[in-house]
Amino acid sequence: MRIIKSVAAMQRLARGWQRAGTRVGFVPTMGYLHAGHMSLVQRARRLTGRGGKVAVSIYVNPTQFGPQEDLSRYPRDFARDVRLCREAGVDVIFAPDNAQMYPGAGADKFSTFVSEGELSRSMEGQSRPTHFRGVTTVVAKLFNIVQPDVAVFGSKDYQQAAIVKRMARDLNFPLKIVVAPTVREADGLAMSSRNKYLTGDLRAQALVLWRSLQQARVAVREAARPIPAARLKAELKRLIECAPAARLDYAEFFDPVTLVPVSGVTRGTHLALAVFIGKTRLIDNTQL
Amino acid sequence: MRIIKSVAAMQRLARGWQRAGTRVGFVPTMGYLHAGHMSLVQRARRLTGRGGKVAVSIYVNPTQFGPQEDLSRYPRDFARDVRLCREAGVDVIFAPDNAQMYPGAGADKFSTFVSEGELSRSMEGQSRPTHFRGVTTVVAKLFNIVQPDVAVFGSKDYQQAAIVKRMARDLNFPLKIVVAPTVREADGLAMSSRNKYLTGDLRAQALVLWRSLQQARVAVREAARPIPAARLKAELKRLIECAPAARLDYAEFFDPVTLVPVSGVTRGTHLALAVFIGKTRLIDNTQL
Repeated sequence: MRIIKSVAAMQRLARGWQRAGTRVGFVPTMGYLHAGHMSLVQRARRLTGRGGKVAVSIYVNPTQFGPQEDLSRYPRDFARDVRLCREAGVDVIFAPDNAQMYPGAGADKFSTFVSEGELSRSMEGQSRPTHFRGVTTVVAKLFNIVQPDVAVFGSKDYQQAAIVKRMARDLNFPLKIVVAPTVREADGLAMSSRNKYLTGDLRAQALVLWRSLQQARVAVREAARPIPAARLKAELKRLIECAPAARLDYAEFFDPVTLVPVSGVTRGTHLALAVFIGKTRLIDNTQL
Repeated sequence: MRIIKSVAAMQRLARGWQRAGTRVGFVPTMGYLHAGHMSLVQRARRLTGRGGKVAVSIYVNPTQFGPQEDLSRYPRDFARDVRLCREAGVDVIFAPDNAQMYPGAGADKFSTFVSEGELSRSMEGQSRPTHFRGVTTVVAKLFNIVQPDVAVFGSKDYQQAAIVKRMARDLNFPLKIVVAPTVREADGLAMSSRNKYLTGDLRAQALVLWRSLQQARVAVREAARPIPAARLKAELKRLIECAPAARLDYAEFFDPVTLVPVSGVTRGTHLALAVFIGKTRLIDNTQL
């Protein structure tokens, strides 16, 4: 396994792969890898087949963090990430620093952004106004650096995956986006690097996200007709805030393709949640 | 020479070129080709060498026109463009329609834009607020569709070339941008598809742009010290508006790399002009 830190070296390698007709699968991450990430790596491996290459990027992208967010304390453990990637048969880790990704200052200042304007407005885009602009910008950069045939994203970040798919289509990136299922802990908590923040009792309280998804699903399956979204939201908010450290940021019921909110919740409606557990903001989602 | 109208077909061809290690030169245009465009084609040919391929795109990109601009009457003559490209030894014309470039509506609506935020603010960006966002978006798309090794832009659109270079660097497009000199008519008028609009006496009046550039150059070369930009601007405005159909949109003196306006004009300062000749807006520029 190679570890590459420079953009130019990664592009040279990618060019060589292109020339050789090697199929390349790519998993962009912010590191602090967990079983969720590793499931994306396995998926990339299956998609590229024997003779293909799997590249994982590890980069905590500053442009997708807001000024009040957890950029500086975002968990990192590069040595462990390297070990996990090696065990999983990853071919290349691309791990640039900020000077590689956003070089220059003054006249050379980085000044180009990619933004998606429809799917980005709601939910995470509303709670974190510059977040998706940072995501689409860094993902566009990484696509140009790694030049994969297929890139794999996790559906825990459901809105992000939808936006990345839209961006790749709109800008004609010559690659395919695959969205893989959320991996959960045994008790249902969605895997997330931020779960590390859940010390003491907070870990148990974080289960309110999973319980909310389950409760909404049961409600929908038992209902004979569409349930008013406002009523279901109010119920979820009550349930969530029974956990003393939990505060609901948003619960949104929406069409899984357009992300447009629905007023009546039925089977097939998508539910996404963002909940603060203490100072840690967690997200989760499911199709009902 | 092949004429390709579909994005998918162009991407398949590009992929084949990549696999074969073929060097690809690319000249994006809005068609209605003139000697200026053809000089870019020759440059692309020299840069790719024997065995290389030269692709020209012909696409009048709606997203770079403002609502009051000349999108609907922008000159077109595809048959003539094809003939010129064939004579020049172009390998592929990529000529998509709007449905290919901006597909979908409703849930599938195009919604991703690339924008450069520093170099785009002044001059054309100020006079045409959404223009450069349209340019960087369509150029990013074309780069992903044609996947060239080198793309050639004309320096008549000096600010555009600077912005495209910045975008390519910021987003790590794996290609080189080359900027080629402006080609002029015998009397100095910069070649432009919009010169077609200059009927009757307007063609002669359009020479005020070239004369302004010359006058500023002479002034700078004769001056012992920096000339105040405001004074030189006022002089150019007087000169330009001696032509009865001419109205100065802007004259800007700036650093050729940063595009930052200078207050004192010296050798090496860059001058860019936008002038309405009747209803036709022309631009030109030179290094003094």
